[in-house]
Amino acid sequence: MFTVLVDLRVRPERLEEFLEGIGINSRASLRDEPGCLRFDVHQHSDDPNRFVLYEIYADQSAFYEAHRTAPHYAAWREVSTRCVVPGGHVNTFATPAFPADIPENPDQNPSNRETA
Amino acid sequence: MFTVLVDLRVRPERLEEFLEGIGINSRASLRDEPGCLRFDVHQHSDDPNRFVLYEIYADQSAFYEAHRTAPHYAAWREVSTRCVVPGGHVNTFATPAFPADIPENPDQNPSNRETA
Repeated sequence: MFTVLVDLRVRPERLEEFLEGIGINSRASLRDEPGCLRFDVHQHSDDPNRFVLYEIYADQSAFYEAHRTAPHYAAWREVSTRCVVPGGHVNTFATPAFPADIPENPDQNPSNRETA
Repeated sequence: MFTVLVDLRVRPERLEEFLEGIGINSRASLRDEPGCLRFDVHQHSDDPNRFVLYEIYADQSAFYEAHRTAPHYAAWREVSTRCVVPGGHVNTFATPAFPADIPENPDQNPSNRETA
């Protein structure tokens, strides 16, 4: 598995457009990408214009290839360009320390497998 | 729901002890705290001594009261004091932007309710 944490700073005047766009992107990623296992969108408690995306993919190719070439990702990039503050997008890449504890782990739960 | 993202920098020589301690804490939190809905542990891809904890609670009291007074939390704090670099613990508090999209949301899935 491959985890992506995305820290985003949004232009306050674009907050509504951002929320609509990231909601479309997160739901389409989960629905249309078999390798996108989790995609949660969180708003910072102390700053409504800061967000964290929590994304788990089956592997790196599910993120770098399948996700980044999906049509909903291209649409999201356009929204992001308009709504995110320049320099306000920071990715952190990680892997689960205990893969067996991740409920969406395809190796743990056959119903999560792409081929199931 | 109430989300806690914890950024941790671990002393390299204490990595093994850290991993054992955070594994015990994350599993006990999920097992023993009805209000702890999710607790994932991730290791940064570019630095094996940096970690992110991804925790979702039913509400703030499930974190500030139930979690922080649990016996496994006290044990974890002792491990943390030994293993985490001074100043290397940063909490970020957030809430789901789309609560209905969170699979563990007690309001969406009655099986997640404390009273179920």
